[in-house]
Amino acid sequence: MRLDVITIFPEYVSPLREALLGKALDRGLIQLGVHDLRDYAHDVHRSVDDSPYGGGPGMVMKPQVWGEALDAICPAEPTPRLIVPTPAGRPFTQAMAHAYAREQHLVFACGRYEGIDQRVVDAAARRMPVDEVSIGDYVLIGGEAAVLVMVEAVVRLLPGVLGNQASHEQDSFSDGLLEGPSYTRPEVWQDMPVPDVLRSGNHAAINRWRRDRALERTYHRRPELLAALPAESLDKHDRKLLEQLRAEEHPA
Amino acid sequence: MRLDVITIFPEYVSPLREALLGKALDRGLIQLGVHDLRDYAHDVHRSVDDSPYGGGPGMVMKPQVWGEALDAICPAEPTPRLIVPTPAGRPFTQAMAHAYAREQHLVFACGRYEGIDQRVVDAAARRMPVDEVSIGDYVLIGGEAAVLVMVEAVVRLLPGVLGNQASHEQDSFSDGLLEGPSYTRPEVWQDMPVPDVLRSGNHAAINRWRRDRALERTYHRRPELLAALPAESLDKHDRKLLEQLRAEEHPA
Repeated sequence: MRLDVITIFPEYVSPLREALLGKALDRGLIQLGVHDLRDYAHDVHRSVDDSPYGGGPGMVMKPQVWGEALDAICPAEPTPRLIVPTPAGRPFTQAMAHAYAREQHLVFACGRYEGIDQRVVDAAARRMPVDEVSIGDYVLIGGEAAVLVMVEAVVRLLPGVLGNQASHEQDSFSDGLLEGPSYTRPEVWQDMPVPDVLRSGNHAAINRWRRDRALERTYHRRPELLAALPAESLDKHDRKLLEQLRAEEHPA
Repeated sequence: MRLDVITIFPEYVSPLREALLGKALDRGLIQLGVHDLRDYAHDVHRSVDDSPYGGGPGMVMKPQVWGEALDAICPAEPTPRLIVPTPAGRPFTQAMAHAYAREQHLVFACGRYEGIDQRVVDAAARRMPVDEVSIGDYVLIGGEAAVLVMVEAVVRLLPGVLGNQASHEQDSFSDGLLEGPSYTRPEVWQDMPVPDVLRSGNHAAINRWRRDRALERTYHRRPELLAALPAESLDKHDRKLLEQLRAEEHPA
């Protein structure tokens, strides 16, 4: 997979060369290009922004400089997918991470938070798939941190990147539930023992306990995820536990 | 505001010293400590993880090393707020960014994605407020990228960090809607003109146009946000536009 990132702060995305991502680069599992948007600005100040039409605070990124950068970085064939992080985008999800992991070439355009002139997205969409994407319901200073998040979420799904391929089959969200708590040695720490069942060697009981904790945690922290589960994904035991949780919260 | 980050990849959070965050540091608006978790591991390999009780793929971070790190970094008085990024946490939102921006001291504990032994959170919660927080419905390799996101979202809200304090009053989410498109010069680019109204100088018309585009975009990309708006926040014109959008999507 090839990844290109266009930004006015190339140093900000240096974590793309660290830790597991750096190893994936070294092993040739991904190729990475980081491009300074200012290289495509031609005035003496290499300026990339200007005042918004219609007034208001903040600056808007200029269309010409983005147009030139995208022309230079996005090949005509095969066309990459262009991803523009913005709080006004569609939400990035684990399902999208899986879809992006099947792409050959992703180009990320990091805007400042006031945004890029909308015509840049409109023009790019004439010749390649373009997604305006939000990583969550909050506002950042620029798109760079969002790109780090999306690249991590995507690259860890590529074959060979994680040591243990099974790891991401037990991720939060893979079965529609949050993951429950994890424990490691020692058996007792600060007067707190590891739950007995996890030391029992009884795999059926361990799986049931983990499922119960996942259901409990999802019930308390993300009830809307439970509501979205298809009915057939809950067994009789699941339904009984959820009834108990409701009864505890709303005693008659 | 004081920020401390505990991680096994201190270089990963180097963007905290870049761009606007770097300026906020230089100007003394924030203080930042980055701590290598391995400094609190005492075996010859400085190991921080171990196999999970109950089996399964991946490793779990050891409680002793985290306990020592938190004892060293979190003062007893005044107590900081401890933030643990995890996909199994409660969702981070713009409202939480505003709440965090009112805190004096935030400590971020970056786990590997298989997670930290749960007793670390349980023990910390006995002596300080602890939030397990998710920045979105996807899975990362570790907590570091999530910390960059949260720190950016919080620090940009601190007085004096953004050049123009008015900027974040027009953010996406501040009125429950996504922001609409922005434009800057030139007036025509690649045959695409800037919408006339934005060059009209008629501020009432400009505000109405911007509100319409925000409503449209929210309707198409985030219908659940519209559904969550209190009825009194929509005026007669808003309601008429939303009826039109519904009629276009579901013609009789």
